[in-house]
Amino acid sequence: MTGKKTQIPEIRTEMEYRVEHDLLGDKNVPADAYYGIQTLRAIENFNISGVKANMFPLYIKALAAVKMAAAKANYNLGLLPKNIKEGIVAACEEIMDGQHNDEFPIDLIQGGAGTSTNMNINEVVANRALEIMGHQKGEYEYCHPNNHVNMAQSTNDAFPTSINIALSWMNEELVKELKCMVASFRQKGEEFKHIIKMGRTQLQDAVPMTLGQEFEAFAATLEEEIDRLNTNANLFHEINMGATAIGTGINADPEYPAKVTKHLRDITGLALVKASNFIEATPDTGAFVIYSGTIKRLGVKLSKICNDLRLLSSGPRTGLNEINLPPMQPGSSIMPGKVNPVIPEVVNQICFIVFGNDLTITFAAEAGQLQLNVMEPVIVRSLFENIQMLRRGMKSLRVNCVDDITANEDHCRDMVLNSIGIVTALNPILGYEISSALAKEALATNGSIYQMVLDKELIPKDELDRILSPENMVTPHKLDRIGKENNDK
Amino acid sequence: MTGKKTQIPEIRTEMEYRVEHDLLGDKNVPADAYYGIQTLRAIENFNISGVKANMFPLYIKALAAVKMAAAKANYNLGLLPKNIKEGIVAACEEIMDGQHNDEFPIDLIQGGAGTSTNMNINEVVANRALEIMGHQKGEYEYCHPNNHVNMAQSTNDAFPTSINIALSWMNEELVKELKCMVASFRQKGEEFKHIIKMGRTQLQDAVPMTLGQEFEAFAATLEEEIDRLNTNANLFHEINMGATAIGTGINADPEYPAKVTKHLRDITGLALVKASNFIEATPDTGAFVIYSGTIKRLGVKLSKICNDLRLLSSGPRTGLNEINLPPMQPGSSIMPGKVNPVIPEVVNQICFIVFGNDLTITFAAEAGQLQLNVMEPVIVRSLFENIQMLRRGMKSLRVNCVDDITANEDHCRDMVLNSIGIVTALNPILGYEISSALAKEALATNGSIYQMVLDKELIPKDELDRILSPENMVTPHKLDRIGKENNDK
Amino acid sequence: MTGKKTQIPEIRTEMEYRVEHDLLGDKNVPADAYYGIQTLRAIENFNISGVKANMFPLYIKALAAVKMAAAKANYNLGLLPKNIKEGIVAACEEIMDGQHNDEFPIDLIQGGAGTSTNMNINEVVANRALEIMGHQKGEYEYCHPNNHVNMAQSTNDAFPTSINIALSWMNEELVKELKCMVASFRQKGEEFKHIIKMGRTQLQDAVPMTLGQEFEAFAATLEEEIDRLNTNANLFHEINMGATAIGTGINADPEYPAKVTKHLRDITGLALVKASNFIEATPDTGAFVIYSGTIKRLGVKLSKICNDLRLLSSGPRTGLNEINLPPMQPGSSIMPGKVNPVIPEVVNQICFIVFGNDLTITFAAEAGQLQLNVMEPVIVRSLFENIQMLRRGMKSLRVNCVDDITANEDHCRDMVLNSIGIVTALNPILGYEISSALAKEALATNGSIYQMVLDKELIPKDELDRILSPENMVTPHKLDRIGKENNDK
Amino acid sequence: MTGKKTQIPEIRTEMEYRVEHDLLGDKNVPADAYYGIQTLRAIENFNISGVKANMFPLYIKALAAVKMAAAKANYNLGLLPKNIKEGIVAACEEIMDGQHNDEFPIDLIQGGAGTSTNMNINEVVANRALEIMGHQKGEYEYCHPNNHVNMAQSTNDAFPTSINIALSWMNEELVKELKCMVASFRQKGEEFKHIIKMGRTQLQDAVPMTLGQEFEAFAATLEEEIDRLNTNANLFHEINMGATAIGTGINADPEYPAKVTKHLRDITGLALVKASNFIEATPDTGAFVIYSGTIKRLGVKLSKICNDLRLLSSGPRTGLNEINLPPMQPGSSIMPGKVNPVIPEVVNQICFIVFGNDLTITFAAEAGQLQLNVMEPVIVRSLFENIQMLRRGMKSLRVNCVDDITANEDHCRDMVLNSIGIVTALNPILGYEISSALAKEALATNGSIYQMVLDKELIPKDELDRILSPENMVTPHKLDRIGKENNDK
Repeated sequence: MTGKKTQIPEIRTEMEYRVEHDLLGDKNVPADAYYGIQTLRAIENFNISGVKANMFPLYIKALAAVKMAAAKANYNLGLLPKNIKEGIVAACEEIMDGQHNDEFPIDLIQGGAGTSTNMNINEVVANRALEIMGHQKGEYEYCHPNNHVNMAQSTNDAFPTSINIALSWMNEELVKELKCMVASFRQKGEEFKHIIKMGRTQLQDAVPMTLGQEFEAFAATLEEEIDRLNTNANLFHEINMGATAIGTGINADPEYPAKVTKHLRDITGLALVKASNFIEATPDTGAFVIYSGTIKRLGVKLSKICNDLRLLSSGPRTGLNEINLPPMQPGSSIMPGKVNPVIPEVVNQICFIVFGNDLTITFAAEAGQLQLNVMEPVIVRSLFENIQMLRRGMKSLRVNCVDDITANEDHCRDMVLNSIGIVTALNPILGYEISSALAKEALATNGSIYQMVLDKELIPKDELDRILSPENMVTPHKLDRIGKENNDK
Repeated sequence: MTGKKTQIPEIRTEMEYRVEHDLLGDKNVPADAYYGIQTLRAIENFNISGVKANMFPLYIKALAAVKMAAAKANYNLGLLPKNIKEGIVAACEEIMDGQHNDEFPIDLIQGGAGTSTNMNINEVVANRALEIMGHQKGEYEYCHPNNHVNMAQSTNDAFPTSINIALSWMNEELVKELKCMVASFRQKGEEFKHIIKMGRTQLQDAVPMTLGQEFEAFAATLEEEIDRLNTNANLFHEINMGATAIGTGINADPEYPAKVTKHLRDITGLALVKASNFIEATPDTGAFVIYSGTIKRLGVKLSKICNDLRLLSSGPRTGLNEINLPPMQPGSSIMPGKVNPVIPEVVNQICFIVFGNDLTITFAAEAGQLQLNVMEPVIVRSLFENIQMLRRGMKSLRVNCVDDITANEDHCRDMVLNSIGIVTALNPILGYEISSALAKEALATNGSIYQMVLDKELIPKDELDRILSPENMVTPHKLDRIGKENNDK
Repeated sequence: MTGKKTQIPEIRTEMEYRVEHDLLGDKNVPADAYYGIQTLRAIENFNISGVKANMFPLYIKALAAVKMAAAKANYNLGLLPKNIKEGIVAACEEIMDGQHNDEFPIDLIQGGAGTSTNMNINEVVANRALEIMGHQKGEYEYCHPNNHVNMAQSTNDAFPTSINIALSWMNEELVKELKCMVASFRQKGEEFKHIIKMGRTQLQDAVPMTLGQEFEAFAATLEEEIDRLNTNANLFHEINMGATAIGTGINADPEYPAKVTKHLRDITGLALVKASNFIEATPDTGAFVIYSGTIKRLGVKLSKICNDLRLLSSGPRTGLNEINLPPMQPGSSIMPGKVNPVIPEVVNQICFIVFGNDLTITFAAEAGQLQLNVMEPVIVRSLFENIQMLRRGMKSLRVNCVDDITANEDHCRDMVLNSIGIVTALNPILGYEISSALAKEALATNGSIYQMVLDKELIPKDELDRILSPENMVTPHKLDRIGKENNDK
Repeated sequence: MTGKKTQIPEIRTEMEYRVEHDLLGDKNVPADAYYGIQTLRAIENFNISGVKANMFPLYIKALAAVKMAAAKANYNLGLLPKNIKEGIVAACEEIMDGQHNDEFPIDLIQGGAGTSTNMNINEVVANRALEIMGHQKGEYEYCHPNNHVNMAQSTNDAFPTSINIALSWMNEELVKELKCMVASFRQKGEEFKHIIKMGRTQLQDAVPMTLGQEFEAFAATLEEEIDRLNTNANLFHEINMGATAIGTGINADPEYPAKVTKHLRDITGLALVKASNFIEATPDTGAFVIYSGTIKRLGVKLSKICNDLRLLSSGPRTGLNEINLPPMQPGSSIMPGKVNPVIPEVVNQICFIVFGNDLTITFAAEAGQLQLNVMEPVIVRSLFENIQMLRRGMKSLRVNCVDDITANEDHCRDMVLNSIGIVTALNPILGYEISSALAKEALATNGSIYQMVLDKELIPKDELDRILSPENMVTPHKLDRIGKENNDK
């Protein structure tokens, strides 16, 4: 995007067509398209979101994986001739390799519960297989999108299975980026571990801590998400291949489900297993709901962290000003020199989209009826969008922000020394009520807790120095026992 | 999309650059780009959603309108030289005309509260104006993005004003499509006005109505939205030009707000007015929230209607089967002959996205802090997406579905005649308790209400025929008075 | 709650019953209950939320108003005998007067689309009317819950009409409290109008303003809600009395709708009108959706304001510390002297509930099917809860917080004088680029903008003093024109 | 609620008070109250939702468990004298036993991040301990709410720990009820396993299945939730006792966290463990978010099931009418004999509240700032409400609905025999295209698939009978292989 290309006008050859036919009649399909009549109908029917399958290569890869596995299983069962099986497998290999992504131009938002996408892959595989087998595109008597490529399948098992596979792969990418994010915060935690600062609860001064503790806590809280994401993504490993139309397995061989699942496991490298109840599994969207909730949890944490980064870097003169975010761009068209926390701001906004999409998914999941949930396409769109944006957002947050954060060490320490909150450390010695009175007086007189305790001769200076040393306040330390005995059992 | 183009590999010329400078240093800007260094930074910083400003031409038109009005106002006030004003105005005219849309490649999701987009338009206008004025791109001493194009403006007034204008125009488009939708349902209401059918409450048989009444009610309920949308879109007419950075109007002439608003009114044709309190108006997102709620209301109604269409067309043999939706594509990869209600299904999904985006907007609006709401970009993205998808969805629903719906008249009437619910009409004569007993017996014995009343000699046949005539049951009719007198005052 | 009562054990008299009968059989109804068998079934069927009708007296008043109006209209039409009409009217007057609130113990969350609540009011009115007429409770031959009290009505018109009336009244109460809230902020705006402080955008120092401007903006933004609430509450004035079961008006006299609406207008004092299309109006929940969105908008604004109050009062030593909220309770069980912004915090939480309830309403509204929306009860519960909590929350915010806020005037002014943001005011003189360089240098050297400009002799001292006077920066002021001429048309 | 008690007017003794003091001054506390001045302030400050701690006995039990464990740990460490420890433990035992529930009258919605509730338990324990120790209430020198009961604690560890414990217990109750629900559906699955019916996808006729399969799928899908709920509730077992104010452990002995966690494990019987990072754990609300998402998933499934039950029981004459729900109450005030699916309807509404509360929790979780999330009280309220309502709703659904569902066996079978969808079973023999043509013709001519295949002599009668036997269509069966060989590896 940083350069400018010379615009060459599109040169279109004379349009060549082949005629295809379905239940509703004939249509002209572009001669060089691998997709067929049903894909064409879907392109015309669904011009909605502009977000198309081909924007998610892992999704197309997953669709092809499903078709390859089905062909192998049907061949094993003696139901699919060897030459057709080989044509299908070879076509699927090309698709998985990314060679035909632009043959998948259907909007992610579609009616029909994914039938259009399933027919899209059926048609592309069939036509490419035909060519490989030495036939012309459209000569479906030799390899038919429904009879051969879709053999023993329905949209209602092939489509959700491909989604499950795609989401499993996308989760791996997301977790990979998340681990980098964690490492980045952890590194800052180490870098800032000597910087004493004031902790705050309810935006009010609380007690001291280190800036390193604060950043390590960002690392720790995000690190928990790795396990959450993986645990819940594991639910995608349960697939319903063999369920066919409604889970009764009509038109699939009884041995087929185990075989196709085994092949799919081999092809994808994922620990896929057959769902225990196909009637249940076919309309079920539970895995999407809980995974979306998990993504949302990650969003909640990232948004909170970005809010904190914005608070801690507020200023430079009239805010907290504890840290400095790297400037990414001039911050104002009118205020010279202003620099804004644009990267955390954009991550906040991504998180808000994530929350919105989680709601969309909830609506879609609740709208399932009887033996199918026809709203799965919008679930797919929303999960894909969430994963992609969070991955991009985390990368930007890491590279363009966190890695280059610096601290204002002196200012942080000065605020601690000047604080009233350190009175908390006197609690075990003076008791809550005297400490409260001290705090109240300090606030009213703009006084220093340290000086007041000395002036009132409440605690000897050396002991006070020890107690009020910020370094002593940032970790637990031994308190004086009442008597000599240890009451521990 | 129905054809296939010959792929020509991109030919890039040797890349030519000009060097631009800002607070953060130098960058190479493509020599033929009208945008400048700050746009470039934003392209690099915000690779998030893939949804870019240039996908919404009305938005770019609105941005240019704002810059044109500001230049005119500043010129009126003697603050901007005539030649610069004329360059700016000419450049803005070209942009409003759609000639430079591809100069706006920044992601809608961005940090900085729109600063990047505001600088994008500032830079494009400045560079194009420079050319018009006979200078080279980048010779900002003659026309500067900040000093001249952005004169007396801040992102914090120019950006929300341009959004308000864009949304006003987009609302007009949406309402136009909505009116077509209403007309379509109304036409069907007329077409079906003679078809007697059973009304249902809680999915249980209730009392008779006509299919025409049902479709006219769809028209009526959507028609109400025209007024709601326009009323709430009117809130966008209040703009804060002159507020500059935080609403105090720093760096704007006291006479400027009135003048710029007047110019903008002329340029846009919208009934724009100056906000009464700029400090309030600048961070306020109230208009977005309520307009989004209005869009959501439209979504709620459309989704309910689509649910109804899917229910009424359920079957063909084991559902309600009162109406037939036009088939748009084969409905299943495994079940031959199956046809699904794909268009209503896709509209349902659009509505679920609308609900999700309304939530995103709520989060973003709530996140405003102090003198600005930095989350406005995600509000913009969500509203733009909602309006565009609803517009496309309604068009598809109208053209691909409603206009070609047919009714199964005989089946509708048979269900009424066979129903128990017609017993309700006997209520005023027999009372609730005897009527209840009749209904209970009919259900238990699989009997006919009509025959039972005759057999039990509860009502003479001719009177019963009159009361139970379906046609009589679908509108109110005169009930027998107790006595002769009329108690009306 | 501040005292302690002597606990008296419950003394139950021997339980007396009357036997009532319905479609499903007999039940024992407590002898002294005005409610009857259907209320009893509902009590048993719906033990869900613990939130009961009797917790909302205006709701019960509205239910009685509907029954009174119907009786009067039916009497006018000669359909209801005079003595029964008079009994019903007298009973309704007592109920509207609040004398029988505890006869409405059904959970707001109920199945049946409000049938239970409608039968509850029918039964209570019937039994109380019977007593007034000189009969015993349960002697329904003289005044029957369905035949007489519910005459020409269905739950599907009587229930939503009563909700509309109740919500209209509740909105009045809410707006009344909102006006007090506005006045409270306005008063503070006046009180603080001389206090100069730094404005902040994106939590970064921006340009100066007054604390009075900030509080007046709170007043102004909330003031807008008065009009929004009233405008959208006006939609409740459209009622569907006469629609009966599904809007076809079965069993209602053609003249009845106009008459009952007129009576209801007189009884309630509200500008009620008959819906233009009953078939549309009966299942429609649009008014609830948009009113809920309006309530949400109020919540968004209140939450933003509370966030601001918490930010501005952060500290006391390590935060912004511009204002002081009145202490309401000790803020910590461990940190002596800590005082927290508990009232804004509780209002934030109320707003989060409001947002949640708006979502609940969206789900419920979308779930309407065919001729009815059976989910209306949960809409009612959610709107009632939102209105009640916002009213209580605003009152607490006003009385326990805003009215006693004080400002730290010196600290506010010191932050302005020390800020870099004031460089913005030099923009029109020095231009954006020189100003940016100054800001950058000030930040790097911890320098003062004022001193730097003097040292560099960029602007004469007296002019600089004038420009950088904080008072001059908080409102627009005349800028120097380029030439002598005025270019204004 | 089915009887009526004689109302005895409240007799109040002369009010006796004791005076208590805190940071803000003196207040009169009722003499016989165990709670103290800070509870009193909270009662006054927070009159918001009407939902109070004492409505959740397990919550109060958990609060007391925390205080007991802390006292034991501090005693073990030699920090708390034996007699005070014993007083505190004895008081906590009484509270855990439910003897003092009405001493906890604070609204669940409160500011201060739970400080009020933490002080409530501190005060009640202290005063009851004082009595047990032979002192008067209020003689805090012998046992102080802060110094002794709250020793080594902050609200910020004691409060979330008590919530975690309460939620763990509540989850156990919820899962218990869920298991009953599963068993109920499973029993119906068994009862209906011989009933052949039509499966439906997208509300369109699909292929046959049994009603038993459908109900067993309800059981299976809900059964999955047991594991989800328990897995995610396990996250509550990680507690932060010893974190004190912000996780740095200030004022807690280094050995204290391990000891208090051990005691709490013994007292509660829960597998509690110390959080690995207290700074992270203290503001973290991740466990609430994911558990709420899990509850939402249960709600999504229950709502879908209730939608299905309402669809399947629609009718009786003009709907699907496959099953009959037990009548719970007359269904209409105007339509005699109408019976509605009120129990599923109420469960739908509960689910909508659950979705709303999940959103409230998302907002609250996202609003955490720096070292604390002050919005935890509203999270608590929302989770408690969700668990309680779902538990009640599932019980009602089971007892008042599912257990008494009956099937219309003949009608179910007739619909299958009359369907077009059975053509799917011919696919493997006739191919997709011929089958499609058959289906199309059947629809157009209102013909029977079976008869058409015979008439056209496409398949011999005995084979057709075998294939189209509904019993054969509801499970997978062996398909004919192409050749003799088995291609399996």
